[in-house]
Amino acid sequence: MRTAKLSMFGLAALLLACATVVQADPLPSWNEGPTKAGIIAFVEAVTDATGKDFVAPAERVAVFDNDGTLWAENPMYFQLLFAIDRVKALLPQNPEWETKEPFASLLRGDVKGALEGGERAMVEIVMTTHAGMTTAEFERIVSEWIATSRHPTTNGLYTEMVYQPMLELLAYLRANGFKTYVVSGGGIEFMRPWTERVYGIPPEQIVGSSIKVKFELRESGPVLVRIPEIDFIDDKEGKPVGIHKYIGRLPILAFGNSDGDLAMLHWTAAGSGLRFVGLVHHTDGEREWAYDRASSVGRLDKALDEAKARGWTVVDMRRDWKAIFPLEKSQSK
Amino acid sequence: MRTAKLSMFGLAALLLACATVVQADPLPSWNEGPTKAGIIAFVEAVTDATGKDFVAPAERVAVFDNDGTLWAENPMYFQLLFAIDRVKALLPQNPEWETKEPFASLLRGDVKGALEGGERAMVEIVMTTHAGMTTAEFERIVSEWIATSRHPTTNGLYTEMVYQPMLELLAYLRANGFKTYVVSGGGIEFMRPWTERVYGIPPEQIVGSSIKVKFELRESGPVLVRIPEIDFIDDKEGKPVGIHKYIGRLPILAFGNSDGDLAMLHWTAAGSGLRFVGLVHHTDGEREWAYDRASSVGRLDKALDEAKARGWTVVDMRRDWKAIFPLEKSQSK
Repeated sequence: MRTAKLSMFGLAALLLACATVVQADPLPSWNEGPTKAGIIAFVEAVTDATGKDFVAPAERVAVFDNDGTLWAENPMYFQLLFAIDRVKALLPQNPEWETKEPFASLLRGDVKGALEGGERAMVEIVMTTHAGMTTAEFERIVSEWIATSRHPTTNGLYTEMVYQPMLELLAYLRANGFKTYVVSGGGIEFMRPWTERVYGIPPEQIVGSSIKVKFELRESGPVLVRIPEIDFIDDKEGKPVGIHKYIGRLPILAFGNSDGDLAMLHWTAAGSGLRFVGLVHHTDGEREWAYDRASSVGRLDKALDEAKARGWTVVDMRRDWKAIFPLEKSQSK
Repeated sequence: MRTAKLSMFGLAALLLACATVVQADPLPSWNEGPTKAGIIAFVEAVTDATGKDFVAPAERVAVFDNDGTLWAENPMYFQLLFAIDRVKALLPQNPEWETKEPFASLLRGDVKGALEGGERAMVEIVMTTHAGMTTAEFERIVSEWIATSRHPTTNGLYTEMVYQPMLELLAYLRANGFKTYVVSGGGIEFMRPWTERVYGIPPEQIVGSSIKVKFELRESGPVLVRIPEIDFIDDKEGKPVGIHKYIGRLPILAFGNSDGDLAMLHWTAAGSGLRFVGLVHHTDGEREWAYDRASSVGRLDKALDEAKARGWTVVDMRRDWKAIFPLEKSQSK
């Protein structure tokens, strides 16, 4: 009898443990409320094999913008801060930049002035700082920069300025059979060296903008050389194109934060069957930055109207997120 | 005692069953010999966690050319046969093709004559037959064609003209934690509709040539329209570029069958650590087609010399493959 009793106790403990695991909050940094409940209801609906909204695992494609959706984007896109650091590093070999725009302004820290030349100035900055080396060399440059450089106001590593609630969402989706992708206007090769470690998203699931590369069979072996020509701009109407090109399936979940994501959200919403379309709204000027319709970085205007008109989910960072950054770096801002 | 005996018998049967599963031949359509042994030795080396050649599962990337490597390519690339069928289908809306090259020759069945116009003729054929519709419409057209059209000499479905030994190799690699990719000069959207069903390779693991697509927000919803402009040619030096663009990792195994694959093979071989580089050599004029250095389709010349010089594996179809096609369609050729 004693043995039987112990066994029953053991069984009860086991069941309890299982129940605890099942009921553990998958999104602990999300406050309770309709946003969190909506995400969970969606995931439960598409993974319920007996339900009408079931989606086979192979079709569970989730796409996320990067800047302003998975990590911060203030005071400017982090890749632009990388480009400025590259201009400084390359100055000794290019002394004429001291007096030549857009570099001269950039070197004085006057980014606004540097970008007054419009798209041409931006392209010139990217081409001179992102091209001319092999892909292996560029990967090394990015890896070193991301491991050591610090954000101008928080002084944190850039990889510490990712959004904790979104990391939890990515993990929750993957635990439910989703394949998670980044679909960003940022450079694909600027992201790939660190996204697996930081987001759990491998290089082959990163979609982004790119410049052309060229195969060369050198004495030392084959290399790919980055050449100063735009290959693909994965922004605005380019995002559905990028999704189609790289993934070849319609996502069933998409998250963005700006008008640059609107086409991707439309594209995702258009598929038949249950869809989740979300926008991160930067409403927290205390813990992060508050901006939307009037911002030059990550402007959220038309997409906010569309979200309201179409019933898409708008995440209110201030209200919906218990924590913003993994280390709660926000207070040091 | 009887119970104990039964249990021991049960245990022995179970162990035997397990041993049988472990020892089952993963490549039954490959004849015993150095080629098959080399493949198995490679897979065992990179998956042995205690060995010096161990490769983490995430890095087990295997790339395969399609035409002539995974399915046949005679009397011409199957996608060209698709294009000819499209020209015929579109003739009523384009009656001028009756007398206009390269269409006139194509309609007379004179492919050689049609292609006398060189690359320009080829591009014109592809552009007129592969562009002008939405991506969803094109997917439907390809799906219908692949499900119903028959090969001019074997009268088999094109998806029956895939190589059984390569299907086994793909499955064997995946069972050992590899991610398998197609890296083909063929059109990415010509392959994606059927590769998952036929090869077990999902659309997001297909790399190929592409034309541009354009996002349009129509009354009926958003669409991507295929426009008559080359986006990317995934052939020759384009193959390492495509691998880098779409996968972002170096493959550890690559298989091709022609000089168009040589750059991809060089690129794969260049990585540090153990690599498997293979060529399918079409040596079986009885069961398939015999061709190499002098062929206009799938010419294998330089790559054959390189393979010999560098010790890459050359699969001799006649000697190494017990069966060629899943249904042994070869006899009806």
